[in-house]
Amino acid sequence: MNESLRINPDAVKNDILRTADFGMIDTENGIGRTVLPGMPANGRARTYLVDQMIAAGIDVTVDVVGNITGRWTPPAADGTAAPVAAGSHLDSVPKGGIFDGPLGVYAALEAVRTIKDSPLSFNRPIEVVCFTGEEGTRFADGVLGSSVAAGELSVEDALDLSDGRVSLGTALAEAGFRGTGRLDASEWHAWIELHIEQGPYLEADDVDVGIVTGIVGFTWGAITMHGEADHSGPTPMHHRSDALVAAADVITAIRRIPNSLGRRTVGTTGYIDAKPNSINVIPEEVTFTWGFRDTDPAVIEAARERVLDEAELAAEREGVDVEYEDRMWADPVQFADACTEAVGNAADRLGYDSMRLFSGAGHDATHMADLMDTGMVFARSENGKSHNESEFTSWDDCYRAANTFANAAVDLATV
Amino acid sequence: MNESLRINPDAVKNDILRTADFGMIDTENGIGRTVLPGMPANGRARTYLVDQMIAAGIDVTVDVVGNITGRWTPPAADGTAAPVAAGSHLDSVPKGGIFDGPLGVYAALEAVRTIKDSPLSFNRPIEVVCFTGEEGTRFADGVLGSSVAAGELSVEDALDLSDGRVSLGTALAEAGFRGTGRLDASEWHAWIELHIEQGPYLEADDVDVGIVTGIVGFTWGAITMHGEADHSGPTPMHHRSDALVAAADVITAIRRIPNSLGRRTVGTTGYIDAKPNSINVIPEEVTFTWGFRDTDPAVIEAARERVLDEAELAAEREGVDVEYEDRMWADPVQFADACTEAVGNAADRLGYDSMRLFSGAGHDATHMADLMDTGMVFARSENGKSHNESEFTSWDDCYRAANTFANAAVDLATV
Repeated sequence: MNESLRINPDAVKNDILRTADFGMIDTENGIGRTVLPGMPANGRARTYLVDQMIAAGIDVTVDVVGNITGRWTPPAADGTAAPVAAGSHLDSVPKGGIFDGPLGVYAALEAVRTIKDSPLSFNRPIEVVCFTGEEGTRFADGVLGSSVAAGELSVEDALDLSDGRVSLGTALAEAGFRGTGRLDASEWHAWIELHIEQGPYLEADDVDVGIVTGIVGFTWGAITMHGEADHSGPTPMHHRSDALVAAADVITAIRRIPNSLGRRTVGTTGYIDAKPNSINVIPEEVTFTWGFRDTDPAVIEAARERVLDEAELAAEREGVDVEYEDRMWADPVQFADACTEAVGNAADRLGYDSMRLFSGAGHDATHMADLMDTGMVFARSENGKSHNESEFTSWDDCYRAANTFANAAVDLATV
Repeated sequence: MNESLRINPDAVKNDILRTADFGMIDTENGIGRTVLPGMPANGRARTYLVDQMIAAGIDVTVDVVGNITGRWTPPAADGTAAPVAAGSHLDSVPKGGIFDGPLGVYAALEAVRTIKDSPLSFNRPIEVVCFTGEEGTRFADGVLGSSVAAGELSVEDALDLSDGRVSLGTALAEAGFRGTGRLDASEWHAWIELHIEQGPYLEADDVDVGIVTGIVGFTWGAITMHGEADHSGPTPMHHRSDALVAAADVITAIRRIPNSLGRRTVGTTGYIDAKPNSINVIPEEVTFTWGFRDTDPAVIEAARERVLDEAELAAEREGVDVEYEDRMWADPVQFADACTEAVGNAADRLGYDSMRLFSGAGHDATHMADLMDTGMVFARSENGKSHNESEFTSWDDCYRAANTFANAAVDLATV
């Protein structure tokens, strides 16, 4: 077993802070950014990454949906061996944080820079990857580039995705990042990704790094209540078909349903739209979403069934019609033992406290896990916050997680 | 007492159907229209009214905020006597019905046309009035023109009201209905208005016409819940500050509060806005409205206090901050005995079943009641519907209500 590798913490910090400049937003506290795929800020963030890859002496490829790959083959390696791929994404949610995505991309790049300067030698090439559109805020619901790389979304369908004004293909071309060919993840030996936890568990247990054992599954959908628009004054309460009251009742149910299902089940309504949305008119039509996540698909399905039952009952109580639409289903993902062991061993060798946990959020790793050994490392998220300007991971936590990640990647590339 | 007057039902029907053409919308059932004040459809509806007034041989005046008045002085009358004013409005809510407003305007005009052709003689002039912007869907929250006529809103402030793009003054000038001078309602002897009930009570009791004894008061306001935007996956339920869950809890309370207050108390949330409104993000900020109406101001205040208490408690439960804003308060209005008696006597003489009831909606009559004897007649609303395409009053019900109204107006003009 090799001596543990240690990355340069200033290099990762510098890359993250430089990337934070692109799409930076005004905030009262913290640092935030809005970097939707194909937008100018995303183009600048990508250009900076490509410059750093070239400076590091690794070969850069951009595929037709904008996935960026930097490949480094160790001098003693077999250039035809299946590579270990590692990375994350550079896009953000609107008003998102600066660590979600960039930490994983630049930890991977810094791992290669560090390995290149070390006496380490192993067999497999390493590919540093930045996937297009992980967050799902434009063109698709998320993990766009990795879906194409995994062969689950065709290049044609991906390029035709629209934000309502332009297609992904056009937006990528305008940003200068519509390359050629398709990154084919099925050629990889393993995928390993460093990401912020986006949850409170590492901090709560005062643990340095997280060994991610899998990703929760989820169900997403929308419910529409169809009531009747009436004047809010002269219409007696018993004469109403109020779509918003029925919706509100179900939204409180979505808050309540996880209580009785699983210890870590979560349920959320993130979106609501009411029509005609006027102070003086009883709402006629209200659409809102459900989302439930858990490690157990049976729990997810139970939550989905319960919310549909609650919606039927609320609609009956308020005299409105209900319709629902399933939007997304993702089975829970279990990561490969080879990867969780590599991460756990790396943390142990480095002297870091670690714990095993599931990821509560989806990641590009979801699609990779279908094709190859896949693993993730979590860095601590202060207060568990993400997807807003309060998202924060201390530079020490970034360093510990990046070291764990780099050593796990070396392990995976050595076998 | 004179023999009862009977209007020409075809004339009122024709005027309402002609007016329905302006701003007509596509509907699946019924007939609907969108006629916001100052919009082209509103200009066309006004022009048609003015043409009918001129054809009827009455003198037309348009004031600076677009209130239209047609004055007719009976040959034997005292031209300096305070007139009886009667009318309603021609604007509608978006996708509103065709009776709300036009029935009152054209019943008043038809009353004058009928009286002119009759042997009736009385002392006071009659003014047929169309007030600007009763519905509150553009420039102001409602009863705009009557507020100016009552001296409760200054001409300058009214003309400066903006819809976010243009001022009322500019919009009226563009529509050709920014006249001169200010219609001064304090010079009137009485105000009488025919309107659809917009509620179910006349139909439920199978009564022909309604003798309106007053108008409920109301409180309107908005509550904003300030929570924290977080990723909907990895954030445990106990770590959330979900602004939408807190809001939904209060919206169900607004549905519930009237139960324990008054038999005809109503409570409504008509408007909701959530930020960032994304399926995958816990809502950070949600604003929604309350509205409560009752005949008793103490009940209205009790409802307002209860919803603020509920909002505080819901905010505490969900760990969010709450702020609230009072938007409008209207005391209940009691109409003059002279008017309710005139309406009741007219119905009796005509052989119509009538009942006394409060109006659940505000009307231009609200402001008139502060200045003079004021009364209203209600026509039946099928299923109590209004403010949408299902709004319907049979032509027979229009006829009975218009006859009652015309005879009551004659009574008031005779004293």
